[in-house]
Amino acid sequence: MGRAVPPLALVQQVLEGRLTAVARMITHAESGEEACHEALAEIYRHTGKAHVVGITGVPGSGKSALVTRLCKALRAGGRSVGVIAVDPSSPFSGGSILGDRIRMNELVTDPGVFIRSMATRGALGGLARASLSGVDILDAAGYDVVLIETVGVGQDEIDVVQAVHTTLVVSAPGLGDDIQAIKAGVLEIADIHVVGKCDRSDAHRTVTDLKNMLAMGHRNSQGYGWQVPLIPTSSVSGEGIPELLTAIDGHLEALTSSGELEQRRRRIAQTRLLKSAENILRDQFQRHHDRQISELTDRMMSGRTHPHAAAQTLLNQFRSERKP
Amino acid sequence: MGRAVPPLALVQQVLEGRLTAVARMITHAESGEEACHEALAEIYRHTGKAHVVGITGVPGSGKSALVTRLCKALRAGGRSVGVIAVDPSSPFSGGSILGDRIRMNELVTDPGVFIRSMATRGALGGLARASLSGVDILDAAGYDVVLIETVGVGQDEIDVVQAVHTTLVVSAPGLGDDIQAIKAGVLEIADIHVVGKCDRSDAHRTVTDLKNMLAMGHRNSQGYGWQVPLIPTSSVSGEGIPELLTAIDGHLEALTSSGELEQRRRRIAQTRLLKSAENILRDQFQRHHDRQISELTDRMMSGRTHPHAAAQTLLNQFRSERKP
Repeated sequence: MGRAVPPLALVQQVLEGRLTAVARMITHAESGEEACHEALAEIYRHTGKAHVVGITGVPGSGKSALVTRLCKALRAGGRSVGVIAVDPSSPFSGGSILGDRIRMNELVTDPGVFIRSMATRGALGGLARASLSGVDILDAAGYDVVLIETVGVGQDEIDVVQAVHTTLVVSAPGLGDDIQAIKAGVLEIADIHVVGKCDRSDAHRTVTDLKNMLAMGHRNSQGYGWQVPLIPTSSVSGEGIPELLTAIDGHLEALTSSGELEQRRRRIAQTRLLKSAENILRDQFQRHHDRQISELTDRMMSGRTHPHAAAQTLLNQFRSERKP
Repeated sequence: MGRAVPPLALVQQVLEGRLTAVARMITHAESGEEACHEALAEIYRHTGKAHVVGITGVPGSGKSALVTRLCKALRAGGRSVGVIAVDPSSPFSGGSILGDRIRMNELVTDPGVFIRSMATRGALGGLARASLSGVDILDAAGYDVVLIETVGVGQDEIDVVQAVHTTLVVSAPGLGDDIQAIKAGVLEIADIHVVGKCDRSDAHRTVTDLKNMLAMGHRNSQGYGWQVPLIPTSSVSGEGIPELLTAIDGHLEALTSSGELEQRRRRIAQTRLLKSAENILRDQFQRHHDRQISELTDRMMSGRTHPHAAAQTLLNQFRSERKP
């Protein structure tokens, strides 16, 4: 077995779009290891060319099948596409779920498509960081479109899907009450609404319900002159996929011509700055403040302090120390 | 209209279990306002008596109906119960979804039951803090059992549900592939597995599948001698609810007699310390570091720095400043 290639040595190959380098670099990014920061910084400088599209929706809405269809449609039009599928799997299991990857298998022989499934790997908050680094890597590697697929619940997932240019929110018929409730929560982040599974007989009701909810919310028109469309699709028949692709391209055009794209890029940069600061701090606490954390925990358990006050103390200790 | 009661003045009434004071204090905690920290610190000192039970599971698994059944069963046994239902609704809408509360309506006339639905209210990361403060308030107010219901996906939700003594993971038949995939992620945090909707004809398959998955995972026995049970229930017929209640009580007994309860209390305290530190830092950045964040964002957008390096700079500025 040869020595592992250090991340920085992979950068040039990533920029040339070499698949093994891209895959390895994503693995480095997932690990969150110190050694990959310099490489990721270099890669970050080469981003900004891809159209980054987030696809979110509750479990069971058929996001993965839709992503597969979108990949094929983009390829048919001559564009390359990278996919980051964020698995909401446990911080304990440390592995991704195979389902999505199996479903996407028919695409894996096409070198113009790169699909990567990501798990949280136990790193608290690491999911957002790793998946956004994954998007950077695919962008810098030259993929025309980068899709990032997440489950539309949970703060982390919402943060991730907001760090994109265009957000698709996928709904589907037959998902029951609880799911409708959650859907209401993510409806407002949509640039494009997609109703999947429109081959089902009850799909028209989902479309009507969604139209009504959107009408109530007054959010179907966005400030920069974009009318949020609602597109019925079927991943079985392929119905609606060309219209969806047209809408995705149309949204990028509206972003660009209105100047909104710069606003979004700014918001994305700021989100990533703050997420990174949180991650660094968490790492530093874990590495260098074990004793303080242990003492403060003792004090909390004996009722001598409270989480907020203990956290203040911890932060003050952090500030008064010499910088590492 | 009278003046709003300041949080600290409510503490005594919370400790006496007065409902309006409890409700108001939770509202203060949700707001995250500076003024409530002292009150919450005082309340925290009076916690530790309630059995805190987390109930998690994917959308559509029937968690809310199960919670309603559990409340009734606990009341029938003479115990009081407080419920925090964490809504995965948007950081944008700022409101909770009504569904759960409507379903639980039949309980609201019983003074021995207190149910509160929580939304994220736009505060990044505020959901975990507010819901755990809510648990403190109900504990200090004297409720024998505190149930906290969350959706079992998303890092924040997993953090919340880990800050309990006993975790129930709810599965149900007929939820499709995607949902099974997610379920695999949370399976490992279960102290008790519940299969809901066992009045359905396809429920036996869910029970069998789950048993197989658990057998593969080798996680049905925990270190302190607790065998993780799998309990089929029906919120329609009430089947399995007495068995579930017995298991919940049995788990607390196993925790207590083995000394594991102290370990869990310690883990909970530590999680809350770190979550609080993150929240404070986020607040401080938002309030006092606007200019630095804006400058660093500019530098990122022009490719002169990278999120990780920019975050390092921001943290160094934070450390070198005088403490507020």
